[in-house]
Amino acid sequence: MSKKPGIPKGTRDFSPVEVAKRQYIMSAIKKHFETFGFQPIETPSFENSETLMGKYGEEGDRLIFKILNSGDYLSKVDDTVYDDRNSTRMTKFISEKALKYDLTVPFARYVVMHQNEIDLPFKRYQIQPVWRADRPQKGRFREFYQCDADVVGSNSLWQEVEFVQLYDAVFNELKVDGVTIKINNRKILSGIAEVIGAKDKLIDFTVALDKLDKIGEEGVKKEMLAKGISEEAIDKVQPLFSFSGSNENKLDQLASLLSNSEEGTKGVEELGFIIDAINTLGLKSSKLELDVTLARGLNYYTGAIFEVTAPENVKIGSIGGGGRYDDLTGIFGLKGISGVGISFGLDRIYLVLEELGLFPDVLEDTIDVLFINFGEQEALASLKAIGSLRAAGVKAELYPDAAKMKKQMGYANKRNVPFVVMIGGEELANNTAVLKNMTEGTQETLNMDELSKAFKK
Amino acid sequence: MSKKPGIPKGTRDFSPVEVAKRQYIMSAIKKHFETFGFQPIETPSFENSETLMGKYGEEGDRLIFKILNSGDYLSKVDDTVYDDRNSTRMTKFISEKALKYDLTVPFARYVVMHQNEIDLPFKRYQIQPVWRADRPQKGRFREFYQCDADVVGSNSLWQEVEFVQLYDAVFNELKVDGVTIKINNRKILSGIAEVIGAKDKLIDFTVALDKLDKIGEEGVKKEMLAKGISEEAIDKVQPLFSFSGSNENKLDQLASLLSNSEEGTKGVEELGFIIDAINTLGLKSSKLELDVTLARGLNYYTGAIFEVTAPENVKIGSIGGGGRYDDLTGIFGLKGISGVGISFGLDRIYLVLEELGLFPDVLEDTIDVLFINFGEQEALASLKAIGSLRAAGVKAELYPDAAKMKKQMGYANKRNVPFVVMIGGEELANNTAVLKNMTEGTQETLNMDELSKAFKK
Repeated sequence: MSKKPGIPKGTRDFSPVEVAKRQYIMSAIKKHFETFGFQPIETPSFENSETLMGKYGEEGDRLIFKILNSGDYLSKVDDTVYDDRNSTRMTKFISEKALKYDLTVPFARYVVMHQNEIDLPFKRYQIQPVWRADRPQKGRFREFYQCDADVVGSNSLWQEVEFVQLYDAVFNELKVDGVTIKINNRKILSGIAEVIGAKDKLIDFTVALDKLDKIGEEGVKKEMLAKGISEEAIDKVQPLFSFSGSNENKLDQLASLLSNSEEGTKGVEELGFIIDAINTLGLKSSKLELDVTLARGLNYYTGAIFEVTAPENVKIGSIGGGGRYDDLTGIFGLKGISGVGISFGLDRIYLVLEELGLFPDVLEDTIDVLFINFGEQEALASLKAIGSLRAAGVKAELYPDAAKMKKQMGYANKRNVPFVVMIGGEELANNTAVLKNMTEGTQETLNMDELSKAFKK
Repeated sequence: MSKKPGIPKGTRDFSPVEVAKRQYIMSAIKKHFETFGFQPIETPSFENSETLMGKYGEEGDRLIFKILNSGDYLSKVDDTVYDDRNSTRMTKFISEKALKYDLTVPFARYVVMHQNEIDLPFKRYQIQPVWRADRPQKGRFREFYQCDADVVGSNSLWQEVEFVQLYDAVFNELKVDGVTIKINNRKILSGIAEVIGAKDKLIDFTVALDKLDKIGEEGVKKEMLAKGISEEAIDKVQPLFSFSGSNENKLDQLASLLSNSEEGTKGVEELGFIIDAINTLGLKSSKLELDVTLARGLNYYTGAIFEVTAPENVKIGSIGGGGRYDDLTGIFGLKGISGVGISFGLDRIYLVLEELGLFPDVLEDTIDVLFINFGEQEALASLKAIGSLRAAGVKAELYPDAAKMKKQMGYANKRNVPFVVMIGGEELANNTAVLKNMTEGTQETLNMDELSKAFKK
């Protein structure tokens, strides 16, 4: 085979520099997940199909990558199904496993399976890849990492308060200023639908309202009408299309709009609690904004809804999101366990840091010192010195061949190695080494003790 | 759905403690990969099927997990193929992607695809999961991590020397004493086959010889005969069935047995170089052993072959392996680039550490301090104190609800939290906090400054 090889659409190779940058972001997220008391778990890359199918809506089902059964998989297909030759109908006969589509549903499955080993409230985080057969575009891939933190087994609104703080802590650590943490509450959306008398159309209503940023007031109204929400009903929510002012102002307006809805009033109270607490505690570099158009795609949120948007000068959409879902483990038969969680979008955050030039200049993508190879005996002496440097944590490498000096130095330059050590014939005889500082161009002759000490940072 | 959910055969959930233990091993491996000058890369979880198929033999092809195409995948199947209803033949029509089976072939694909961005010699490491539809058993899973380090673009035997040191460094770091690093050379195996006049049967010969440990001398001979290797030829290799003594002794015996084979003699020289260098440099806690029966399953090794076995008192088979493969990128059209690499078997190493009790007692699987929740105002004051502790890297958590004291302390005990802080009504009034040491049972009242200082480690 001499065809140049490629990789599947929507997947990526990561070079050493890219790995270092991704690790930089993941380390910041992990650090704050842990100081906030979350513990890591991991779940398999693929799940039984029945665990995933039907949990993300029809579109989700289509976008889940299915794994073909091993062996003579066609032998398990009913003849009538086979004769029908319908891909959708065939799938469950030839595929029993699927790559995970997000971390939340497998986590719900985990909680139900391990309920006897877990102490509630259970605060877990997961940083793992997920897969979606989506059309790739900027910042959207078929294989990508999700970084999730969730708490199950507590109804306390302090969790929501802490999640706002957690977003702020991570983006502050990454030096991303001016992030907006948008917050809403599903109960407010329900309350609005109730007040306008379109309770049965809540999903249509929220899906349409969620598009206000994208398609504008007229577009949203058109969609609502098309979904069978009356013009009269839409008129009643008119204030929502030009909602502004401080979070407190918005809360006041909502309180009056929803005063006749028990659920809506509850939502206003919950949001008020969170906003008050954050006002008292303060945020480092993000701002919290009540956004009543925020609904998000998934239908399982029952309380708070979060979405984080990048600083205004970066056009990239949301870089995180989450919310409270009172019924999540219910889909696996365990009722009455509330969960709330947030997610960080690693790839989007990467693009934000790239665009704003926020990656540190020196990310560890090279070695500390290269030893030049002058031949067998010299190389052996070099490896002895390298051994003690490595034991002290120094990243050290021997050039593999006794190639021409120019070639070896060229390699050191290309890899931006800050120091080069030369043990040639003379040094070998004297048990010394020449240490060259590649940045400054200086060099000095040291004995082996001095060489070790030179790298003690 | 109320059926209790499960996970696919051969896959695993990892609890916080298990994640911590796995991270402990991976950190040790990663640390030494980096001090030895290797840089991390990552490749996608799935590859185009043509990248993987045919690279691991017929058995490998069967064990590769294939991903079903999205959409109306059956529409792309030829009618004659569909009518034939043969699973093996059908697969390539309905599946174009496959989960990676190891890290080496995707790495070869990476080198070829990115040859213009890479400076040779290129030293890379990868710690990523791979998937095999193998029958699960102790220490063998369908999803598992490989930890690989490879160098491409250098023929130097110093790489082999360094890989022996790298194995030693990692197992010494993990406190696993008495690991045996077995080494052989493909050229020696070829030389033997040449000397006995069965050069065309090299693969059959090495596969049989590799089983000496498992099926004994008689078994190996029987298999060789069955494969068409003559009794006379087998007699010529009789010394190999009772090979013993020091590495130097073995080298001498091989040198004489292979004196008429150019390739064999080259293999003896190469092994001699590596063994001499390691004798001079010394190993920390492993031993290097020339094992002429070592052939390993894969056919792409052309020089050194490595295999690492656990200390004698642990029955688990190999915990690492590798070797030199001169032609690996050749399968993707890039000739003349030599590679050599080793792999660590994470799951097997985990079992070794578990069996020998070598995991550190305190792996980070809990928080440093829990704040008791006494109500809204107290919780708010607690979150303020928690904020400054977290900023200093302390893992701190507020109990989410103002539950009964007994319940909150019970949670602290179950999670083995070493310290508990109580800010109740009195403390709130005085701006103080009670710090309780859960190990010693002592407690003291501190002001907020003192509290922060108490956690400065």
